[in-house]
Amino acid sequence: MKFSRKIESCSLSPIRKFLPAELAARAAGRTVHHLNIGQPDIETPQAFFDAVRDFGDRVLAYAPSPGVEVYLDAVRDYYATLDASLERGDILATYGGSEALQLLFSCILDEGDEVLAAEPYYPNYHTFIRTAGATIRPIPTHAENGYRYASREQIEPLINERTRAILVTNPGNPTGVVLSREEQRLLLDIAKEHDLFLISDEVYRELVYGGETPGTMLSFPDGAEHVAVVDSVSKRFSATGARVGALISRNQELIHHALKICQGRLCAATLDQVGAAALYRAMTPEYAAAIRQEYQRRRDAVVEGLRKIPGVRFSVPEGAFYLMATLPVDDAEKLQYFLLEEFEDRGETVMYAPGEGFYATPGLGRSEIRIAYVTNPAELRRAVELLGLGIRAYQAKCARAEKHAS
Amino acid sequence: MKFSRKIESCSLSPIRKFLPAELAARAAGRTVHHLNIGQPDIETPQAFFDAVRDFGDRVLAYAPSPGVEVYLDAVRDYYATLDASLERGDILATYGGSEALQLLFSCILDEGDEVLAAEPYYPNYHTFIRTAGATIRPIPTHAENGYRYASREQIEPLINERTRAILVTNPGNPTGVVLSREEQRLLLDIAKEHDLFLISDEVYRELVYGGETPGTMLSFPDGAEHVAVVDSVSKRFSATGARVGALISRNQELIHHALKICQGRLCAATLDQVGAAALYRAMTPEYAAAIRQEYQRRRDAVVEGLRKIPGVRFSVPEGAFYLMATLPVDDAEKLQYFLLEEFEDRGETVMYAPGEGFYATPGLGRSEIRIAYVTNPAELRRAVELLGLGIRAYQAKCARAEKHAS
Repeated sequence: MKFSRKIESCSLSPIRKFLPAELAARAAGRTVHHLNIGQPDIETPQAFFDAVRDFGDRVLAYAPSPGVEVYLDAVRDYYATLDASLERGDILATYGGSEALQLLFSCILDEGDEVLAAEPYYPNYHTFIRTAGATIRPIPTHAENGYRYASREQIEPLINERTRAILVTNPGNPTGVVLSREEQRLLLDIAKEHDLFLISDEVYRELVYGGETPGTMLSFPDGAEHVAVVDSVSKRFSATGARVGALISRNQELIHHALKICQGRLCAATLDQVGAAALYRAMTPEYAAAIRQEYQRRRDAVVEGLRKIPGVRFSVPEGAFYLMATLPVDDAEKLQYFLLEEFEDRGETVMYAPGEGFYATPGLGRSEIRIAYVTNPAELRRAVELLGLGIRAYQAKCARAEKHAS
Repeated sequence: MKFSRKIESCSLSPIRKFLPAELAARAAGRTVHHLNIGQPDIETPQAFFDAVRDFGDRVLAYAPSPGVEVYLDAVRDYYATLDASLERGDILATYGGSEALQLLFSCILDEGDEVLAAEPYYPNYHTFIRTAGATIRPIPTHAENGYRYASREQIEPLINERTRAILVTNPGNPTGVVLSREEQRLLLDIAKEHDLFLISDEVYRELVYGGETPGTMLSFPDGAEHVAVVDSVSKRFSATGARVGALISRNQELIHHALKICQGRLCAATLDQVGAAALYRAMTPEYAAAIRQEYQRRRDAVVEGLRKIPGVRFSVPEGAFYLMATLPVDDAEKLQYFLLEEFEDRGETVMYAPGEGFYATPGLGRSEIRIAYVTNPAELRRAVELLGLGIRAYQAKCARAEKHAS
């Protein structure tokens, strides 16, 4: 049977291909530590489960297509604390941040259109943009200057007549880059000057360490027409399985178009929206500070461990819960197979996400890896220690092979 | 700002435009009876809420992208009772039947492609197929022979080099047509001969009245490559707000491609899948018989009422919970505005879904309406009575206007 060109140009998750090797390592009795997955182990606030248990309707009916009112109002009130003044009608409840992205791309992209995104980027952006018929034009960044990208020099030469949007993740996945207010202002200026949408994926907002918090792109009064924000309860409230997010924009024409698809798919899940409303109502400065401190401890554990590994280079991430590191090896995928198939220390080994999957440009990212620091500091310290031991063993093996060949 | 051509060619729900008139009628103190909405008033089985309340994890984590195992296995076992032998890997958990359709269209349609669907059809198919860049080529049907469409004469002349699939709803929305096994066999033969996917939306499966049950297209042993079934707990278990459905196919290449998008959007909601698993486990012949009898009582109440209205024509629906009727008026939309703005009987009036929104061919369906029989028989009898009284009042008004004009 024939399949669409757009789906043929997508692929399964690049992390998945290591699953057989992981299963074999486990079957051989080894413990596999995970630096590769974004599932936090932090408890979902009890408010979510309480709200779901208290749901009293006997018929689990459709929610309104734009969302349950208590959820929309809770999101609106949360944004008021970020100096973004929204109406209920500026918000659409979605199946996680993912559906908000899918809606946006369906509304603004036709075949052949382009979206600018800093490379390395979250790989699922590629899937969503390709299934809308368009492509990502990567904004090149460099590990050496911490993957920063918010400059006219890096962005404007890439804009052409098919460019429809600039897509940013702030704080960034996989790089941990946090855009300053000046950088956000500049990106909005560029979007306005070139009549582009500025899509800001802000699902990690509270997770910033040390520096100024990024706030939201929605708080620029002159951004109403251009800014669309993607949000989600997944990371902020450690509720990834709830699949509740939001598409937020003061551009009412955009909301009107997105609502066509929202009505088509009828609604997002009713109970999960009720639970998510309770989460937003439970968001306090104390809760935000607590999760920030917890992830900072995790980040610091990883940073401290990586500094002990000779030849590893990285920038200390400012936000989110990821870190890109350049390893002293030719190919991080080969190292991953080595770690799973040949290496162990006290019966343990480690997995990460090889960097190549975060790049569109062929050949880039081959020596890089993404680490997710979502487990407890003791666990992370051991995982990073295993990475260091594994690199040393791999280098020794390569040196032996070279000697043997010469 | 510029929006995509595909979203510009979609529209908001055609039913929505009557909302202001409905609100005005309510504000004026009138009671509005609803024949226009597909939200059943039947209680969701308690098993769903019990399973959700018993969920013990403290972290609401991502489900696996293909679905929670207990849900996939419950769906597989349910299909075994329908003579369809499935593996867990033939099933993907989706956000309702809607996402299953979106996945399918993304996997098989490129810009300019076509899908055959009997007209009148469920209007949201248009939105999903247009956002995938393709269009519906309608298979014309006729009210006079009960909207039947499964014949070579009706279908084969419409197949061309851009045709990618035949899409059927069985039992049918909005017509209530139930395909016999012979008709299903014929459709599969046509799909195989022309190398098309046969997409079968079977969300109303249990709701058949009198005749043979339709079973599932998945039970044809030779349909593995061509058949994809869309399913959902929404109607079968009166759980529309759960948003849990399934894309099911033994074509593993199709599942492979759809999984790319499933991994991109990460997963369907964890708790709702756990609840949906309990629903499938609670499906018994007794439960199926009970909901079938309840909807049959509702259908019969509507049919009995419609037969008393002079000039109304319709076929008695064989399944689902909808009925298409041709009214003795020139324009069912005009009548709807009349009913909301000028008509009342003891302070009450009625709404339905005008037929035009279910047709792609311009001009068709103008005298038709779709009735959803999802409330209790007494309520339905009164709603249909109001329709009859309203038609008489409208005809009298038209006659006066004509007399005045002549």
